Amino acid sequence: MSVDLNGPVRLGMVGGGQGAFIGAVHRIAARIDGAFQLVAGALSSDPERAKASGADLGLDPERCYASFQEMAAAEAARADGIEAVAIVTPNHMHAPVARAFLAAGIHVICDKPLTSTLEAAEDLAKLAEGSGKLFVLTHNYSGYPMIRQAREMVAAGTLGTLRLVQMEYAQDWLTEDLEDSGNKQAEWRTDPTRSGAGGCIGDIGTHAYQLGCFVSGLTADTVLADLTSFVPGRRVDDNVSVLLRFDSGAKGMLWASQVAPGNENALTLRVYGDKGGLEWHQENPNQLWYTPFGEPKRLLTRGGAGSTPAAERVTRVPAGHPEGYLEGFATIYREAADAIRAKRAGKDIPDGVTFPGIADGLSGMRFISACIRSSSDGGVWTRVR
Amino acid sequence: MSVDLNGPVRLGMVGGGQGAFIGAVHRIAARIDGAFQLVAGALSSDPERAKASGADLGLDPERCYASFQEMAAAEAARADGIEAVAIVTPNHMHAPVARAFLAAGIHVICDKPLTSTLEAAEDLAKLAEGSGKLFVLTHNYSGYPMIRQAREMVAAGTLGTLRLVQMEYAQDWLTEDLEDSGNKQAEWRTDPTRSGAGGCIGDIGTHAYQLGCFVSGLTADTVLADLTSFVPGRRVDDNVSVLLRFDSGAKGMLWASQVAPGNENALTLRVYGDKGGLEWHQENPNQLWYTPFGEPKRLLTRGGAGSTPAAERVTRVPAGHPEGYLEGFATIYREAADAIRAKRAGKDIPDGVTFPGIADGLSGMRFISACIRSSSDGGVWTRVR
Amino acid sequence: MSVDLNGPVRLGMVGGGQGAFIGAVHRIAARIDGAFQLVAGALSSDPERAKASGADLGLDPERCYASFQEMAAAEAARADGIEAVAIVTPNHMHAPVARAFLAAGIHVICDKPLTSTLEAAEDLAKLAEGSGKLFVLTHNYSGYPMIRQAREMVAAGTLGTLRLVQMEYAQDWLTEDLEDSGNKQAEWRTDPTRSGAGGCIGDIGTHAYQLGCFVSGLTADTVLADLTSFVPGRRVDDNVSVLLRFDSGAKGMLWASQVAPGNENALTLRVYGDKGGLEWHQENPNQLWYTPFGEPKRLLTRGGAGSTPAAERVTRVPAGHPEGYLEGFATIYREAADAIRAKRAGKDIPDGVTFPGIADGLSGMRFISACIRSSSDGGVWTRVR
Amino acid sequence: MSVDLNGPVRLGMVGGGQGAFIGAVHRIAARIDGAFQLVAGALSSDPERAKASGADLGLDPERCYASFQEMAAAEAARADGIEAVAIVTPNHMHAPVARAFLAAGIHVICDKPLTSTLEAAEDLAKLAEGSGKLFVLTHNYSGYPMIRQAREMVAAGTLGTLRLVQMEYAQDWLTEDLEDSGNKQAEWRTDPTRSGAGGCIGDIGTHAYQLGCFVSGLTADTVLADLTSFVPGRRVDDNVSVLLRFDSGAKGMLWASQVAPGNENALTLRVYGDKGGLEWHQENPNQLWYTPFGEPKRLLTRGGAGSTPAAERVTRVPAGHPEGYLEGFATIYREAADAIRAKRAGKDIPDGVTFPGIADGLSGMRFISACIRSSSDGGVWTRVR
Repeated sequence: MSVDLNGPVRLGMVGGGQGAFIGAVHRIAARIDGAFQLVAGALSSDPERAKASGADLGLDPERCYASFQEMAAAEAARADGIEAVAIVTPNHMHAPVARAFLAAGIHVICDKPLTSTLEAAEDLAKLAEGSGKLFVLTHNYSGYPMIRQAREMVAAGTLGTLRLVQMEYAQDWLTEDLEDSGNKQAEWRTDPTRSGAGGCIGDIGTHAYQLGCFVSGLTADTVLADLTSFVPGRRVDDNVSVLLRFDSGAKGMLWASQVAPGNENALTLRVYGDKGGLEWHQENPNQLWYTPFGEPKRLLTRGGAGSTPAAERVTRVPAGHPEGYLEGFATIYREAADAIRAKRAGKDIPDGVTFPGIADGLSGMRFISACIRSSSDGGVWTRVR
Repeated sequence: MSVDLNGPVRLGMVGGGQGAFIGAVHRIAARIDGAFQLVAGALSSDPERAKASGADLGLDPERCYASFQEMAAAEAARADGIEAVAIVTPNHMHAPVARAFLAAGIHVICDKPLTSTLEAAEDLAKLAEGSGKLFVLTHNYSGYPMIRQAREMVAAGTLGTLRLVQMEYAQDWLTEDLEDSGNKQAEWRTDPTRSGAGGCIGDIGTHAYQLGCFVSGLTADTVLADLTSFVPGRRVDDNVSVLLRFDSGAKGMLWASQVAPGNENALTLRVYGDKGGLEWHQENPNQLWYTPFGEPKRLLTRGGAGSTPAAERVTRVPAGHPEGYLEGFATIYREAADAIRAKRAGKDIPDGVTFPGIADGLSGMRFISACIRSSSDGGVWTRVR
Repeated sequence: MSVDLNGPVRLGMVGGGQGAFIGAVHRIAARIDGAFQLVAGALSSDPERAKASGADLGLDPERCYASFQEMAAAEAARADGIEAVAIVTPNHMHAPVARAFLAAGIHVICDKPLTSTLEAAEDLAKLAEGSGKLFVLTHNYSGYPMIRQAREMVAAGTLGTLRLVQMEYAQDWLTEDLEDSGNKQAEWRTDPTRSGAGGCIGDIGTHAYQLGCFVSGLTADTVLADLTSFVPGRRVDDNVSVLLRFDSGAKGMLWASQVAPGNENALTLRVYGDKGGLEWHQENPNQLWYTPFGEPKRLLTRGGAGSTPAAERVTRVPAGHPEGYLEGFATIYREAADAIRAKRAGKDIPDGVTFPGIADGLSGMRFISACIRSSSDGGVWTRVR
Repeated sequence: MSVDLNGPVRLGMVGGGQGAFIGAVHRIAARIDGAFQLVAGALSSDPERAKASGADLGLDPERCYASFQEMAAAEAARADGIEAVAIVTPNHMHAPVARAFLAAGIHVICDKPLTSTLEAAEDLAKLAEGSGKLFVLTHNYSGYPMIRQAREMVAAGTLGTLRLVQMEYAQDWLTEDLEDSGNKQAEWRTDPTRSGAGGCIGDIGTHAYQLGCFVSGLTADTVLADLTSFVPGRRVDDNVSVLLRFDSGAKGMLWASQVAPGNENALTLRVYGDKGGLEWHQENPNQLWYTPFGEPKRLLTRGGAGSTPAAERVTRVPAGHPEGYLEGFATIYREAADAIRAKRAGKDIPDGVTFPGIADGLSGMRFISACIRSSSDGGVWTRVR
């Protein structure tokens, strides 16, 4: 095939067939900036559904595969084969699929959490690090421009020495036993064999933790967690309370819940240092509240006065015209595309390109694992490693 | 060419070359749902820039045209020619470009306001109505799901008989004489030969008015406007105050300003009837405040409890994950694509498909014209027609 | 009696008997800072109710009068007679009561609007100005600390040259014909013989106007008003839309409504100049939003970083502990007490003491009158004088 | 003296002399509803300052005492002696003063926390319970109307079975070492000999805990606390993270901080049950967010549609006119006055009268003590008793 070094990245997808939620999100995210072209898929483990799903998306039928193994082999063999695969299966399938594509020399873009067990994560991390291929983990919230700005402000010392990182992610959709009423999303997310030992901690707690670490630049040294399953019969936790001690001496709290009526996706981050504080709310992501200690609070807006280079480079439309969840997700994809194109051209990844990767995935799995151990030991301080 | 009735709509673009703002927005909007494929363009009136802009977008060089006339002729002649053209030029070029493509049998998707004069609008409306082609006007704010819901609630009588429609669109970017400092956006928008006689009234006042009419289902009978150019030397209005009397007996106020420091794109709509009230703010578009008279205020959210079918059908991601400006814009495009595909297949436009069209454009031009006349007559009640 | 120059001011009250609303508010306002002692009253025009109301308040029965005329005469004759009277009757009684007490040499604290007709206001103004007595008009919203700060910032030129003053006061309590259901408040406020020719314009429109003038330092030169009675059978306006042209060249809009469901006491002020903008909302009065043009928006808080002397001097508790409506009202009373005590001691009124007076009352009546004339003439520009 | 069963309660005050903060707040609170008359004081331990402070307040010089012991004895001996004393000293003096007045047969209104040690609290509780006198603890936030409503809604089962109680109280005023710069408030609050072993936990953590218990009706069974002194040299904690397990099986988190820049008095309460959720923020106390699970969020306002009897009975002004901190504080005083007058008349305390008392104080001290023990043991689960 012709070599267009600037052309869109050829993308395949595993999972995300008819009825799936996150697959559709990944596809929109890949499309927004025109940097990818979806050309192949193993969209379902059910061959009929895989085929029908591919047809819906206008895929070439011969590139609609019945299994991910077949897809990895066939695409690796094509001159115009996919350069990257998006993995959007339930959690327990992330590792085997990723291993297959990395082994086939194909970059991986994987939904979070990395795997369903810490052991699988550690194995995958070793493999990924030695593979020479990119591993992009779609911790999409780190794609929001004001999160980029918050991270840049912290790194620049604007808040001084950090003391506190307060993280929350509250939802209410599992307030009742939705998993017993035929809801597919609820079913697999509350099934330990598919989601891993953690429920709420793995589904959303890990997002909050990743965001806190991404912005603060800190990593938890020890955690103390109290995990609860409030809904009778539920097999995984649906509420998580965590105290954190960071390696720097900073401290933190993390609350994640799926049983807090009135909360849709109330992901909130607050970071305080000895010179100032920041607050950010995912449901209104274009705003970042910044208080230099002793001065009035300032409302920083995406694209507005006071926005910094790290936010500007991932901003698409002017201030006051909100960007949302899909644009944040798309930023992860665009950053991945920039990195893949650099690789394609034999160049270094450009300065500024930033995306969560295998290290974030492993860090997240260590956090999940430590929280589960802490809680099952009765709520004791537990090292994160 | 093969006939894929469900395939993406083949799209061309006039305007939107390097450095342009709104053209890039239209392209993202067209991409988000995968319903269009951009295949041709007359992206700039400067042939070199037109070519370079096309290359940036990966267009086939032979379909990068030096003029819109050439493009209309050439594309109409191709078996795989464009089915629709997106017009994203300054306002004074909307009418001639639209006429050329309608004449060539190509659907038109046009930025607002419709034209730069009322006469041009009336002529174009006649042409468009007789053309058998679709005319889509990108009053993008009407693509927001909660605006769709507001319109549906009003139409269902949820607010009772409407009494008041309060519209605002406040910005601050023209607080100083930006047009004299080399800013391209400011230059053409404050140049009557390119933007039309109205400045603020045509640029954003018309958005607020369209939104008020779209939601309320009402049309202004008479208006009284006070247009001001606060910035010394500015050739068009930068602040607009309007009183409105609707045909139903309802009343309204409209404030649009580009000189109100602290406002980015503060487009706000409030509608009150004898049974309830609604409030909506563009900068946080996923929320709609609804008060049934005598009961507590309710926060309706996109995708959340209480959302209605009209909102659900244009919703992409779950409640609490914000959609923004680009998704609202993309909804206009998706609705256009659904209509074009229906036309392509010789079918009726599906129920529910809703987009602003030539009538909205003409209504908007009548509003602008009436406001300018009212104000230049010293601020008198003026019929809108 | 002994002469305690610093002792509380001896206060009487006309109106405000059992079941009245605003009288109770005045009494709390007078008590909060301990600067007044209520010692006499003509609390109702019904002698039985006057007596019973006085007993409820612990007044000496011999100082519970059956008429305001009797009270003025008797109190003026006592060595320990009242120094000031609070007038809290329906509007049409303000002027006769004020005249009686001014004539008796007693300071007046009067609820707004000043009178029920412009003629009565002009007469009263003349009398008051020649009386040597203080006339305090309880435009209570001007007692809020952040309003004081806004006024001070404007006067200091922080916003540059003012361009726009946007005023709103929206309520919903008269959405239905409450006056026909036995509600006393609704009855007199919608009865032109008791409230004056204006309904909404006099009840709340005048508050919004006073606030806009108080903060901006401007006075309207001409207005254009559209007054509406939306509720069938209502004898006064319940919705008011006004365009304003100020003497300085600044412009403004004012919306007041009592039929906007979802609004309790949504009094809002926005002021914009060529260097910055301010926004304030009565329902959250401890915050003032300030945007220096080209910089991030700042949240100024009562008592917080960035508060100015004019705010500090009327602040009672630290930042973050909200003060409310009663404290704002009490500030008017405290300022009145400071002025009365200065008079008592033969001194000048201390610097900084600020309260609305007869000039504000007259200005408000001129505004009401001009709006009513403008509207009854079909909505034409009308001079305010 | 004459027996006026409905007359104001005769009040004395210990502490609260010139320069004190909370004493002035108590005096305003006592005045707002006219239910108390301040007639005596031991306002400072410095006799000169005690006398001058009394003069400022217009107290009879012979009732300005040099010590609280003298005051208790003298007032108990007078026919017109005080009926209640307000104790507004630093924490370590609460117990000795309270003991003296209870012993003298005088009701006590005491600032929080109850004492500076748990032992003192237990002793005082025994004494108070056997005294036949009222003991009112001014946990003032429980006087806010919407907090009363929240408590009533929980008790009525509106939220179903409670699962989560999330409490926060964040400030920033101690971000730097203010205690070393001559600030009196900072000095005693960070001095263990005057404030007790806890700093932030006793000063504001206890407010958050009391509020959580007051609304939820729950008591913590065990807690796990991590107390930190972030500011170098500070002798008490300035940040507190607590996990709670309630006796009912509900869980909670509590964060209190005095080093979180951008927070003034950000006291927040969120309560979630299996049928709904509530959120309340002290800085905007007239609003209560209520979400019945599966329905849109509702904004309940003080005095507005949806307000309940418990809120109505402590509401002074109509919806949309904010009440604030002082009114909430005044409600505690008014409730105390109602109880004292009932006692005075030999009657039962009327239904509905609600104020925090000795049990709340003891509960608060147990919480503080358990948190301090938990933290000094390294952060372990600790029984609250």
